[in-house]
Amino acid sequence: MDALHAYLEKNKDRFLEELFELLKIPSVSADPAFKDDVFEAAEFVRSRLEEAGAENTEVCPTEGYPIVYGEKMVDESAPTVLVYGHYDVQPADPYELWETPPFEPVIRNGAIYARGSSDDKGQMYMHIKALELMLATDVLKCNVKFMIEGEEEVGSASLGQFVKDNKERLAADVVLISDTALISMEHPSITVGLRGLSYMEVKVTGPNRDLHSGIYGGAVANPANVLSEMIAQLKDDDKRIRIPGFYDRVDELSAEERAAMAEIPFDLEAFKSELGIPDVEGEKGYSTIERTSIRPALDVNGIWGGYTGEGAKTVIPSEASAKISMRLVPHQRSEEISALFEKYIKSIAPPSVRVEVSSLHGGEPVVTPVDSVAYRAASKAMESTFGKKPIPYRSGGSIPIVPMFEELLGLKSILMGFGLDTDAIHSPNEHFGLINFFKGIETIPYFYRYYAEMHGRSK
Amino acid sequence: MDALHAYLEKNKDRFLEELFELLKIPSVSADPAFKDDVFEAAEFVRSRLEEAGAENTEVCPTEGYPIVYGEKMVDESAPTVLVYGHYDVQPADPYELWETPPFEPVIRNGAIYARGSSDDKGQMYMHIKALELMLATDVLKCNVKFMIEGEEEVGSASLGQFVKDNKERLAADVVLISDTALISMEHPSITVGLRGLSYMEVKVTGPNRDLHSGIYGGAVANPANVLSEMIAQLKDDDKRIRIPGFYDRVDELSAEERAAMAEIPFDLEAFKSELGIPDVEGEKGYSTIERTSIRPALDVNGIWGGYTGEGAKTVIPSEASAKISMRLVPHQRSEEISALFEKYIKSIAPPSVRVEVSSLHGGEPVVTPVDSVAYRAASKAMESTFGKKPIPYRSGGSIPIVPMFEELLGLKSILMGFGLDTDAIHSPNEHFGLINFFKGIETIPYFYRYYAEMHGRSK
Repeated sequence: MDALHAYLEKNKDRFLEELFELLKIPSVSADPAFKDDVFEAAEFVRSRLEEAGAENTEVCPTEGYPIVYGEKMVDESAPTVLVYGHYDVQPADPYELWETPPFEPVIRNGAIYARGSSDDKGQMYMHIKALELMLATDVLKCNVKFMIEGEEEVGSASLGQFVKDNKERLAADVVLISDTALISMEHPSITVGLRGLSYMEVKVTGPNRDLHSGIYGGAVANPANVLSEMIAQLKDDDKRIRIPGFYDRVDELSAEERAAMAEIPFDLEAFKSELGIPDVEGEKGYSTIERTSIRPALDVNGIWGGYTGEGAKTVIPSEASAKISMRLVPHQRSEEISALFEKYIKSIAPPSVRVEVSSLHGGEPVVTPVDSVAYRAASKAMESTFGKKPIPYRSGGSIPIVPMFEELLGLKSILMGFGLDTDAIHSPNEHFGLINFFKGIETIPYFYRYYAEMHGRSK
Repeated sequence: MDALHAYLEKNKDRFLEELFELLKIPSVSADPAFKDDVFEAAEFVRSRLEEAGAENTEVCPTEGYPIVYGEKMVDESAPTVLVYGHYDVQPADPYELWETPPFEPVIRNGAIYARGSSDDKGQMYMHIKALELMLATDVLKCNVKFMIEGEEEVGSASLGQFVKDNKERLAADVVLISDTALISMEHPSITVGLRGLSYMEVKVTGPNRDLHSGIYGGAVANPANVLSEMIAQLKDDDKRIRIPGFYDRVDELSAEERAAMAEIPFDLEAFKSELGIPDVEGEKGYSTIERTSIRPALDVNGIWGGYTGEGAKTVIPSEASAKISMRLVPHQRSEEISALFEKYIKSIAPPSVRVEVSSLHGGEPVVTPVDSVAYRAASKAMESTFGKKPIPYRSGGSIPIVPMFEELLGLKSILMGFGLDTDAIHSPNEHFGLINFFKGIETIPYFYRYYAEMHGRSK
């Protein structure tokens, strides 16, 4: 692999320049104002894929934003890897909290600062550059297919239909995704579990209009108080979720498994200090890592009602609302949990108000086997470039497309991400370490090499 | 008083037209966009006062909006009544909920629909027209002074200084105010108690930035959950306020007093139906009327935090806030209650968050004696025009200027209002019954007549 390293060293500046060009395109899928930019980003990805050596590249139209396809078939008997990524980004607001503008990438403290630098343009672009590297140095022994979408940040609405319509074109042996984080650069890891999601909205309605709190205060249920009281009843003093049936399908890990988790390096003081919190808080009897990975969670994502401007307005609001989401673990089922939530929240509502509940979004939890050929190839690849074996790690986030690939294509996914939890994805000042970017480009060819070798042996 | 009635009948249309002119001026004191309109309303009031026969009228500048002054001194030995009212109005938004525009008054279903029609332009203007009536028919036997302010809806910030600076000019025997409501037209009433107010804002801060709820959910205190849990701890299951010391100074009424309150006509079904609520809710062991008058109350006036837009954003908010106010009864003290609130809310905050508390507004509760000359005059005046003795009634709202007049001028106030609780003040579609407007104009001269008579006798 010496030629490969030499090629990478020689071309680092150009690779960065290309990524910067992509980061400059504000491809915010959530905001129609950026529609042209999203399309521009798709075409940019397609043309770079082609330049890297991919064939049959295409910007495939969908009902929403297009999906970029490209492939390099090297050998009919070799295994095929389907690379998934996304070229759309989260909205960048609030802009005023960015130290440098979100769509003017700069390098600061050894990291690339820009919206999308880590999630997922930077990580996705590693794969395009790795393809270029492998083809230029003639080391690619797998077939590769790319499927890069533009709606990941808004729920991947068009992807399912595209996958259904293109099953043959997408036929592969495994899906490879870099859209997750390492524990740290010193502790490389591969994500082997993702939590699912049930995302609900609750609206509590009281009087038919905002009331004067002096005239009516004390005699009429206040929807903002009631909503607060209902939210308070969602967890007990041990921070366990009180929804009946909620934990019924939750896997309890064995003592051995928990002991293995306890080995994962974690610095509680650094965690608190990085977040600026006086203390952590969570389900009694579990560690912080367990609370964010093997245990479900419930969070209010937004709450609003009544007067929220300056000063004092003496009003009893007519209604109050909250967005409340739950992170699920194997083998909880999103639809079932949403239904249990709705049933419980309605059961605790006092007779003095009306309550409406709606389900906004759902996704199933995922666990990846660690004994598959693809996992072992990924593990060995990271060991080659990081100098130590990566830790199989369950992450707290959800990537709803992973269960979808399993269902529609029958394919497992390898979540070999090179970001860090501190990259501030979805937040102002998102960044991606230069070392992470180049380490990713360096590691990916090893994956293909070991995967081709092991796959041949396992046949 | 026949001449008086005849004059009123003859001039009703003109009186209404004049009021409509005043209602068309959008004198919203809370919004600087309406600054010129607020000044215009002041000058309008002054010129109408002058036309009605008041002397020494003046638009008195203050650091904020001006105070309109005018007087009619008829006899040095006669008692002097200081009329207080306000020409500013609440903001009218949300505009889209008004059936007709808030500043284009119309008569519908026997009522004047416009912002300020009841609170307080319509009620204040009754006094100007009553003055005209009395002077035109030569029946006024009291001295009268008018003090009409333009900052009542934003806390009367300039009034205290004005009163301090004008103690001699404002010297009087009683203050007369029409800025409250009758129980109903069939059950006239005089307000003899007002609740006080402690208005607080609470901000709960967790992580130093919004966090991805997948990555961190379950391990980090969520400020929106924590705030909800803290709000839920403000009341117990009997809806009693749990702040230690909160009830220490609350007057418990005697069985006789409560029996008298139970005589106040009240239709629970009509109350529920008018508000569109499935049921009432309040402190255990008290009636709805008691809950809104002799008992303190606590309400969330506004709550906000996290993502409140369309759809699902998976965020743990960095902070969440609420505006929370308490209505106080004699002899609770606003400053003391605010301090107790702050101490309690901080004591129940978990160690995983930081909590900031600020006091936004305060006012002391008031009770008016029912055996004063002025009260008896007001009672007899209403009996003359309504045909039945008015009920002395404690109202739930706060009028902070009432204790201020007592403190700075040594004057008690008579709260002889002619509105109704259903007037939708501070809400869309505010209105004021035509019959209420004219009944007020008719009743006020009786007050002056009886007050002059009784005052002479009581000397």
